[in-house]
Amino acid sequence: MFGEKIDNWVDHPIIRPSINCVAMTYALAQDPKYKDLMTATSNLTGHTINRFTHLHQSPEDLIKKVKMQRLLGQKTASCFQRCVGMDSFNAVYSTTYEIDEKYGTHYHENFKKFLIYVQDNDLTVDGAMTDPKGDRSKAPHEQEDPDVFVHVVERRPDGIVVCGAKVHQTGSINSHWHIFMPTISMKEADKDWAVSFACPTDAEGLYMVYGRQSCDTRKMEDGANIDLGNAKFGGQEALVVLDHVFIPNDMIFLNGETEFAGMMVERFAGYHRQSYGGCKVGVGDVLIGAAALAAEYNGVEKASHIKDKLIEMTHLNETLFSCGLACSCEGCATKAGNYQIDLLLANVCKQNVTRFPYEIVRLAEDIAGGVMVTMPSEKDFKSDMVVGKNGETIGEICKKFFVGRDDIPTEKRQRIMRFIENMCLGSAAVGYRTESLHGAGSPQAQRIMIARQGNIAQKKEFAKIIAGIVDKD
Amino acid sequence: MFGEKIDNWVDHPIIRPSINCVAMTYALAQDPKYKDLMTATSNLTGHTINRFTHLHQSPEDLIKKVKMQRLLGQKTASCFQRCVGMDSFNAVYSTTYEIDEKYGTHYHENFKKFLIYVQDNDLTVDGAMTDPKGDRSKAPHEQEDPDVFVHVVERRPDGIVVCGAKVHQTGSINSHWHIFMPTISMKEADKDWAVSFACPTDAEGLYMVYGRQSCDTRKMEDGANIDLGNAKFGGQEALVVLDHVFIPNDMIFLNGETEFAGMMVERFAGYHRQSYGGCKVGVGDVLIGAAALAAEYNGVEKASHIKDKLIEMTHLNETLFSCGLACSCEGCATKAGNYQIDLLLANVCKQNVTRFPYEIVRLAEDIAGGVMVTMPSEKDFKSDMVVGKNGETIGEICKKFFVGRDDIPTEKRQRIMRFIENMCLGSAAVGYRTESLHGAGSPQAQRIMIARQGNIAQKKEFAKIIAGIVDKD
Amino acid sequence: MFGEKIDNWVDHPIIRPSINCVAMTYALAQDPKYKDLMTATSNLTGHTINRFTHLHQSPEDLIKKVKMQRLLGQKTASCFQRCVGMDSFNAVYSTTYEIDEKYGTHYHENFKKFLIYVQDNDLTVDGAMTDPKGDRSKAPHEQEDPDVFVHVVERRPDGIVVCGAKVHQTGSINSHWHIFMPTISMKEADKDWAVSFACPTDAEGLYMVYGRQSCDTRKMEDGANIDLGNAKFGGQEALVVLDHVFIPNDMIFLNGETEFAGMMVERFAGYHRQSYGGCKVGVGDVLIGAAALAAEYNGVEKASHIKDKLIEMTHLNETLFSCGLACSCEGCATKAGNYQIDLLLANVCKQNVTRFPYEIVRLAEDIAGGVMVTMPSEKDFKSDMVVGKNGETIGEICKKFFVGRDDIPTEKRQRIMRFIENMCLGSAAVGYRTESLHGAGSPQAQRIMIARQGNIAQKKEFAKIIAGIVDKD
Amino acid sequence: MFGEKIDNWVDHPIIRPSINCVAMTYALAQDPKYKDLMTATSNLTGHTINRFTHLHQSPEDLIKKVKMQRLLGQKTASCFQRCVGMDSFNAVYSTTYEIDEKYGTHYHENFKKFLIYVQDNDLTVDGAMTDPKGDRSKAPHEQEDPDVFVHVVERRPDGIVVCGAKVHQTGSINSHWHIFMPTISMKEADKDWAVSFACPTDAEGLYMVYGRQSCDTRKMEDGANIDLGNAKFGGQEALVVLDHVFIPNDMIFLNGETEFAGMMVERFAGYHRQSYGGCKVGVGDVLIGAAALAAEYNGVEKASHIKDKLIEMTHLNETLFSCGLACSCEGCATKAGNYQIDLLLANVCKQNVTRFPYEIVRLAEDIAGGVMVTMPSEKDFKSDMVVGKNGETIGEICKKFFVGRDDIPTEKRQRIMRFIENMCLGSAAVGYRTESLHGAGSPQAQRIMIARQGNIAQKKEFAKIIAGIVDKD
Repeated sequence: MFGEKIDNWVDHPIIRPSINCVAMTYALAQDPKYKDLMTATSNLTGHTINRFTHLHQSPEDLIKKVKMQRLLGQKTASCFQRCVGMDSFNAVYSTTYEIDEKYGTHYHENFKKFLIYVQDNDLTVDGAMTDPKGDRSKAPHEQEDPDVFVHVVERRPDGIVVCGAKVHQTGSINSHWHIFMPTISMKEADKDWAVSFACPTDAEGLYMVYGRQSCDTRKMEDGANIDLGNAKFGGQEALVVLDHVFIPNDMIFLNGETEFAGMMVERFAGYHRQSYGGCKVGVGDVLIGAAALAAEYNGVEKASHIKDKLIEMTHLNETLFSCGLACSCEGCATKAGNYQIDLLLANVCKQNVTRFPYEIVRLAEDIAGGVMVTMPSEKDFKSDMVVGKNGETIGEICKKFFVGRDDIPTEKRQRIMRFIENMCLGSAAVGYRTESLHGAGSPQAQRIMIARQGNIAQKKEFAKIIAGIVDKD
Repeated sequence: MFGEKIDNWVDHPIIRPSINCVAMTYALAQDPKYKDLMTATSNLTGHTINRFTHLHQSPEDLIKKVKMQRLLGQKTASCFQRCVGMDSFNAVYSTTYEIDEKYGTHYHENFKKFLIYVQDNDLTVDGAMTDPKGDRSKAPHEQEDPDVFVHVVERRPDGIVVCGAKVHQTGSINSHWHIFMPTISMKEADKDWAVSFACPTDAEGLYMVYGRQSCDTRKMEDGANIDLGNAKFGGQEALVVLDHVFIPNDMIFLNGETEFAGMMVERFAGYHRQSYGGCKVGVGDVLIGAAALAAEYNGVEKASHIKDKLIEMTHLNETLFSCGLACSCEGCATKAGNYQIDLLLANVCKQNVTRFPYEIVRLAEDIAGGVMVTMPSEKDFKSDMVVGKNGETIGEICKKFFVGRDDIPTEKRQRIMRFIENMCLGSAAVGYRTESLHGAGSPQAQRIMIARQGNIAQKKEFAKIIAGIVDKD
Repeated sequence: MFGEKIDNWVDHPIIRPSINCVAMTYALAQDPKYKDLMTATSNLTGHTINRFTHLHQSPEDLIKKVKMQRLLGQKTASCFQRCVGMDSFNAVYSTTYEIDEKYGTHYHENFKKFLIYVQDNDLTVDGAMTDPKGDRSKAPHEQEDPDVFVHVVERRPDGIVVCGAKVHQTGSINSHWHIFMPTISMKEADKDWAVSFACPTDAEGLYMVYGRQSCDTRKMEDGANIDLGNAKFGGQEALVVLDHVFIPNDMIFLNGETEFAGMMVERFAGYHRQSYGGCKVGVGDVLIGAAALAAEYNGVEKASHIKDKLIEMTHLNETLFSCGLACSCEGCATKAGNYQIDLLLANVCKQNVTRFPYEIVRLAEDIAGGVMVTMPSEKDFKSDMVVGKNGETIGEICKKFFVGRDDIPTEKRQRIMRFIENMCLGSAAVGYRTESLHGAGSPQAQRIMIARQGNIAQKKEFAKIIAGIVDKD
Repeated sequence: MFGEKIDNWVDHPIIRPSINCVAMTYALAQDPKYKDLMTATSNLTGHTINRFTHLHQSPEDLIKKVKMQRLLGQKTASCFQRCVGMDSFNAVYSTTYEIDEKYGTHYHENFKKFLIYVQDNDLTVDGAMTDPKGDRSKAPHEQEDPDVFVHVVERRPDGIVVCGAKVHQTGSINSHWHIFMPTISMKEADKDWAVSFACPTDAEGLYMVYGRQSCDTRKMEDGANIDLGNAKFGGQEALVVLDHVFIPNDMIFLNGETEFAGMMVERFAGYHRQSYGGCKVGVGDVLIGAAALAAEYNGVEKASHIKDKLIEMTHLNETLFSCGLACSCEGCATKAGNYQIDLLLANVCKQNVTRFPYEIVRLAEDIAGGVMVTMPSEKDFKSDMVVGKNGETIGEICKKFFVGRDDIPTEKRQRIMRFIENMCLGSAAVGYRTESLHGAGSPQAQRIMIARQGNIAQKKEFAKIIAGIVDKD
């Protein structure tokens, strides 16, 4: 990070908030109030496990997944990072089953053993998919630098050695293990790039370069609290590099069966597009609440246009939730027995997530008012440097002039404005806006899937029958 | 209709298409292919019944309802009218249970008997709710003309006599029976207006005045077929007048228990807002298919902007479906035991229905091209009047100049253009556009419910916790 | 029309309303109040002429053109058809100047003489551009039927003989003369199709086939008035066929100079895309007014959501007007001396016209309420057939139940609902919606021009300078 | 700033970029290439002056103003702050004329003298309007703290003493002088708050508290360049406090004539809402260019969905420009002789500015890809700390994996991503997004003006005539 090695990342003020998010996935699972959502019974062992390590056994499980994600979003207003692991478990589980079925390989057995270990130890796992990709018009084997897609550089009797990297890894740093998966469909010539495996985060040769984000260093300021908007929770992104990392045979889930790369990608993406109909809705809930508080503190919450904007925000947010639920309740069993979401509706869900959070943000900024970007720093509010002719300090001047309703302390208004700033422009905006756009695949990726799954041919038939069009007359 | 009494309405060319729609709800129920969607097992009798007469027993039933409606939409591209009955059954069933519980009345028993009769005879019933309302700023008892809301004008030992009317009744003419319900919440002074009952369509004193719609008389033109766009199916609207109609005691489901008027309205509206996430999606499927055919016949279906518009239409349509599913899968049991939808999500569903069909229509018109509104009449296409110097007839000239792709007969293009015209501007536009806007309550009605159900207070709490706002310090 | 020849088209109830629109372009020019907008001084003769026959001499002229169009829209709520002539005059005038400059032809002189005749006799001229086009993937000379683009079939010493047709001709029937122009850019092999000329409407071999539209026959109903929504004005569309029509030399403006076909198209389209920023705004004004009246008659005009919808309609409508003005005030002189609009902004203008009227319509339907599509016919309202037990007639029943505010006669509500129906779904919807989409070129045509005119290369340079990107380091 | 006094603000890395913006308003005025846009001839002195100090003498001047603003936006991608001065000059000039006319005061003469001094010395002046406002439901004189609106605390023979503050002052720190104006319409009881005057920035008792913004401290990082996105230019906001500042009589432009407070506000707001149709368009140009570069560097610029998104961005941006031009070309002379914009269209302009930049930003983020928020810091890219097994440094690893097209150095991609980050989330997002929303008045303020100026009464008349509604029959 910033060109330097971080030794104590647990207490690093930039990293810590994202650790707190992951911690919340453990804390809520301990809370009896959330037991039904946060835990499940393993179909592999019968043990009670954290739902983040669960293989979905029914549409109800898929629905609970989405509700659990909304809950976490409400508690953190951030990305809590553990979904990629859960989504990769379910995608790899069903895909390895079908590879083995065809090739007689043992990937599914490998994976089951690994997953039991994860479940029983309640581990956080990063599902790492997105390769750097280099020139997007070329296949992996055509790239000038073969490392822009993760690939096998050596095959040994006891395992493989891999090189490459994964970009945009939100949860990598806070994960015990990683599952690496290919990022695109592949052809025969890409055999060495069609590889999936698990690997502990402290594996020899694996390291990360920390991404920088809007307002990241604000977290390092002395005594920073209010200015952070969300002082406890936050997100992060990293580049994960694999520099000749050895993977033993029993941690390999795909190794050269190129035609299954696409299936793994599509299934993971499907689950992950569903996820956005849960987590971002929870974050949206907090932002809607914050906008309502801003209106209250500004003394305008009864204005009809304010009420209408809050309704619109709620409407958009619940539409996203509806999409998350719908692709879940239409889920069906894979050959391996776990449940996958409805692919068309999951893509529709994510496509809406690429739009509505932006409008929700715009409405939040509208309700908050310009003060969310013009307010002096927390240090000014706390400063006792005298500036006024009657001996007023800077802090007093700030409190005097940034007051809203008489009966609300300026600090409350300051806190809610900083929270909204954080969500709309600051470090949380990375997660709520840009990640909503590109996470789990950019908008165009969903449009391609919608075109493929939309069954236009059948719709044409409906129209022909009603319009009286007979094809062979 | 048009100032005259219609004696044979079954064969009337304006009315017939809407009868064909209702007939489809019977025909599909006979088709083994659709048995699971179209039929259900009565919880009252254990008989296999048409799902349109069913009391929903689970979220799965609610989901099947929505899918059945989508199916009917795909088969008719019209309103098939029977949903209001089904929605009123479920609303009245649970509401009467709660009235009886409080007042010791026998409405629930009355209703059950009536419903068994409906189920066993597979009757079509109109759920009639919307009163004319007169001056919208006044309560029923304050209106200058008491009849602008249906009300009791006489109470007799054996029953009541009612007067008033219901407007916007789509399925009234094709129904065997009607269930009348109040249209708004009421206060004590509106006692005589808080009334619900069933009544056969041929009751003495009940009559209808037919509403006129875009392109209605096109159906009466000699030999009309292609110009109709949808020659077989269509919708209609009527004013239903109750002119001193006698209702026997056992057909009464509410009679003066004013505080339950609101519950009945809200539950019916909730079910009916869910319905729109099914039926309009089915109609949308046909319109999307028609637009794709228009593109094909115009020879432009490979153009990227055309493909993108079809994707967008599909995306919007499936978002509506997702909302229909979501409020269903979140359904829960009423005290009476049947299932009701999630009220917030049903209102979100309908709110989207007030928007997306309009954009789908715009995109369909975009893809179709201007020819959908400039093409000569079917009579011109069929005319053999000679107009050309080389003896060409009008029909030949029309076919010559309105051709698209060489290998597609002009008639196919003509048919699909007329179908799209019908959906976008013609008689079907009434159902697909204006009814999507106002049916089951105008947009503002949903916004009020979203505000009420959106739980802003809880959202404020989420924001306070994360922003570090402590209320009593 | 309907397979039959119309002899007296002037009094034909379907055609008459569109004649009334054109008549308004003459009537207002006589009105001293509108003299400044409606008339101009000819640069060719110095005579005071109708602005519809004027060659724009300045940006002020271009602005007055747009304002004149808005005025006509306000007075007719319809297409008044005479703009295509004006737009073709200005496009042909400047293009012929440049053809002559290159080829030494005399088209410009021909055209000037023709235009002086038009100006002095205040003629209405149809600017006919859109060919049937057949298979859109083929050039004119590649089409199976050469007639799907207008072309020269014989060259004689005194002129040419032409064949083909123009579709979507709104004003053709009411025009004294036509100017025919090519509809696309052409290559050498399309020489015979690169032709432009003037021709009187009663030329031997020229005839029209009338297009049918939503609710067209409602105008033919006995005593129809209220049900028409707009009883006086309306639009129409026709196919104009040229069946071996002889064109004398002095009426030819382009004849084989293929590279100028594109210039003529682009200039005409540019002017015509500007026009939509005037006429449709005027029509929008009437629709906004109607929605406000509907709200008033419904007794809800003080509701904040109603006021907000009227604001949004006004906002969208004035945005269109702004675009119409902007491309005008940025106009510049052609080589021939008349002024053309800013091409980028005219395309931006039209692109917005393909969107906003649809939203304005949706909002109008929202404000009006469902009654706009469920109200009985005018004949029912006027019927004295007795239906009620107390001797009420159908007419009385209709008036009783379709009343809004007590103090407003039902007929006023009926009239405004029918007007809104006419604009949103009826015959006027063809002009206000579909024509806004496809007239002067479909949306994609504008997008292509915006891409071409948007100067992305320059914008990249701005970004490079600010981002510190140096290309050759 | 940050609780401390800044002595050398000129070289302060957070402040400097905003000074560079103002400097550009001087630099371009020296450039012969921009002479026509950047300079004007003073109507007061006949001198050639910077257009930022000019009183608009014609619609052409108003148009040039907008074009000058677009130019500066293109050169800085920031707010260049000098518009508020220009807009206040024109508003105060015409308002003082009308006050004097009514009251025989000498404000207009005062102002003219002041403005000649500004013009001749080419000064930058802050037009300070927005008061803190406190409880928004109360008038100035009702506020608990009278200072939440600027007001007169003492009247002396030679002048007045004022107290209060102005918030959201973008250009204050870089201005030689300030013009203070009221921020709302006022009634008689608010006499002491109805005050306008000029005051030098170094007046005794005037000081500023610096607002903090997204990514502000990134500018203070050692060696920061690429990570800034826009290393040279930027914006800022400050609270300006007036602590018993003495204003001599000849610098007073309003002093208790309460009914003119509203006129001054409305005129200033009108000019300033026009301004946004220039400056934000220029900034939009740079962002569109940056998105196009990002697509180029990613190797996807030929993809049809990318091209379509660039077209949409251009379309939206030019729509804003059209609105800026339209309200200018419709400008008309005030009583004082300078020109004011069309008020309705200026409000329509600004209303669009509250929407379209948000969509342009969303599209830019879409085209850029997730890497705009996940890329490591500049320090990582430059680090030579060895991390790879083959001796690769962090810098080499970053360049290796963040490469796009082979032939484009990673640094170019890095620079354009950081620029887009800066515009969408970073410090420039404050200006391009939130300021577009709230600057010159929040969206609802424009909607109120659109309602007032939209002339619904006249539109109702148009509708009545066409629908055949006669009011007194």
